[in-house]
Amino acid sequence: MREFELIRTLTGRLPAGRSDTRLGTGDDAAVVAPPAGHELVVTTDTLVAGRHFPGDAPAADIGYKAMAVNLSDVAAMGAAPAWATVALTAPALQTDWCEALQSGMLQAIGDAPVDIIGGDTTSGPLSVTVTAFGLLPCGSAVRRSGARPGDRICITGTLGDAALGLQLWQQGVVPDNDTAAQWLRARLHRPQWRDGTAMQGLAHAAIDISDGLASDLTHVLEASGCGARIEADRLPSSTAFDTLCPPDQRHALQLAGGDDYELCIVLPPAHVEPLAAALSCPLTSIGAIRAGAELQIIDAGGRALAARDYRGWDHFAGGN
Amino acid sequence: MREFELIRTLTGRLPAGRSDTRLGTGDDAAVVAPPAGHELVVTTDTLVAGRHFPGDAPAADIGYKAMAVNLSDVAAMGAAPAWATVALTAPALQTDWCEALQSGMLQAIGDAPVDIIGGDTTSGPLSVTVTAFGLLPCGSAVRRSGARPGDRICITGTLGDAALGLQLWQQGVVPDNDTAAQWLRARLHRPQWRDGTAMQGLAHAAIDISDGLASDLTHVLEASGCGARIEADRLPSSTAFDTLCPPDQRHALQLAGGDDYELCIVLPPAHVEPLAAALSCPLTSIGAIRAGAELQIIDAGGRALAARDYRGWDHFAGGN
Repeated sequence: MREFELIRTLTGRLPAGRSDTRLGTGDDAAVVAPPAGHELVVTTDTLVAGRHFPGDAPAADIGYKAMAVNLSDVAAMGAAPAWATVALTAPALQTDWCEALQSGMLQAIGDAPVDIIGGDTTSGPLSVTVTAFGLLPCGSAVRRSGARPGDRICITGTLGDAALGLQLWQQGVVPDNDTAAQWLRARLHRPQWRDGTAMQGLAHAAIDISDGLASDLTHVLEASGCGARIEADRLPSSTAFDTLCPPDQRHALQLAGGDDYELCIVLPPAHVEPLAAALSCPLTSIGAIRAGAELQIIDAGGRALAARDYRGWDHFAGGN
Repeated sequence: MREFELIRTLTGRLPAGRSDTRLGTGDDAAVVAPPAGHELVVTTDTLVAGRHFPGDAPAADIGYKAMAVNLSDVAAMGAAPAWATVALTAPALQTDWCEALQSGMLQAIGDAPVDIIGGDTTSGPLSVTVTAFGLLPCGSAVRRSGARPGDRICITGTLGDAALGLQLWQQGVVPDNDTAAQWLRARLHRPQWRDGTAMQGLAHAAIDISDGLASDLTHVLEASGCGARIEADRLPSSTAFDTLCPPDQRHALQLAGGDDYELCIVLPPAHVEPLAAALSCPLTSIGAIRAGAELQIIDAGGRALAARDYRGWDHFAGGN
């Protein structure tokens, strides 16, 4: 299959586009028209076979995840996702595989008004790089650096699902057709990115949880020059997680497990209720920002856990 | 080296940034503020080891080319390049190698006001994906589809240099230290992208020549619903090319050789002189757009060459 046809396959049969997409694929570059008074948010992430997904993973899962992790980064800035480009490298470029990849990307986009405006395909070892773009009113980006002592730390959805899903799958201790195990594995392969636009004007700082809560929250604390205290036993968990998680691994999976793509949001106490009301998913308060530089993690008995034990975990490579 | 440090190495020590770059690397996403009345041009291209460059190529050459080919796509729309993101996949992420990659990218950027605003690094088989962004006044994009019968077809710079540089290098028939051969090889590894902003308001259509003139001009003709007639012996050539090119390969290298990254510009005859005066490189008229759908290529004796023989050439892979 020639490259030009392949790019059409990847990007050609999409839902009706945005009115501010002036030109999609098929030229030297795409053209978009960000509305007046808005800033553009830009992020890029590569998924590589054998590192971020198994080499024989279904194309639709690869496409889903490559798109979702980038839309999650856009959401973590408080922006509304608007456009994406896709650069695909694959050993053999086959139509049905590319169609499945594209369908996974469209599933990750869901109802969001996101146009795939550009693509590149190359033959080589399998990897997918998505660059995603979002829009937000000028000056309203929710950065990592805005946390202040006294702010609450909140988490959307539930934590630990993807890490437990991976662990059960690798260990094979729970049947593949176990409903809870299937749900957890879907959280790993098809993470639900959150709409972050409700954070505009309410949140001081945010990050999406890709590397694990302890690691990602540390990025916020370093950027903000603050410390924090969080309660490990208040971390939100799913029913499937509660059912299948070995009790002694609960803290590790929820604090260090990556790939959940929930949002960690820092905001004044008075803004927690309004934000929770505006979100379409649960929001759980897990602790507070403090002066200093330390991340304190305590359990239900008030005992301190060692935060450093929960940082820098990496599923496929055993480190960064 | 940890990913966070590496991204800082790739993007951290850059020249003073643009005033409309609100936030660079270090957060979930970058934030930029396109000026009012402007559209944003977006393009992405991946270079893969063994396909677009030898696996042991100098990191600075890889960085240079990855950036240059994307800035060339931005230029081919008539836009002024403004920002770029870099997604690097490499087996071993070493500081000095990444610094060399970055220095090559900065050399490709040169004096252009381009900020590298985002990055991602992953361990895996070597490839570099750059996404580049340009700005142009609303509605002024120079597309492939605007060619009209009667328009002139012009080429910036010279054609065939990169293809001849590669051929000589692969054949080893000319000493590596031959000045002309070195110059030709530099055209392959370090192509000079052209500033396309002068095309705004003057050109009807444009494309950058990455796959070869016959192939790329065919894209313009297909998008515009036109034919063309060009004169193979009027294609501009460099002194080094004239010195080292075997006479019987001249047409093939100039018509089918890719990687020159010159601009093929289609414009009304009355606009050729004003555009030539505005460009900082030579502009050569090589033919005209005609009605129909055929690309006619004739030599100095008026004999027709077979256009299909010069399309779809690929340096590293022998096809798309």
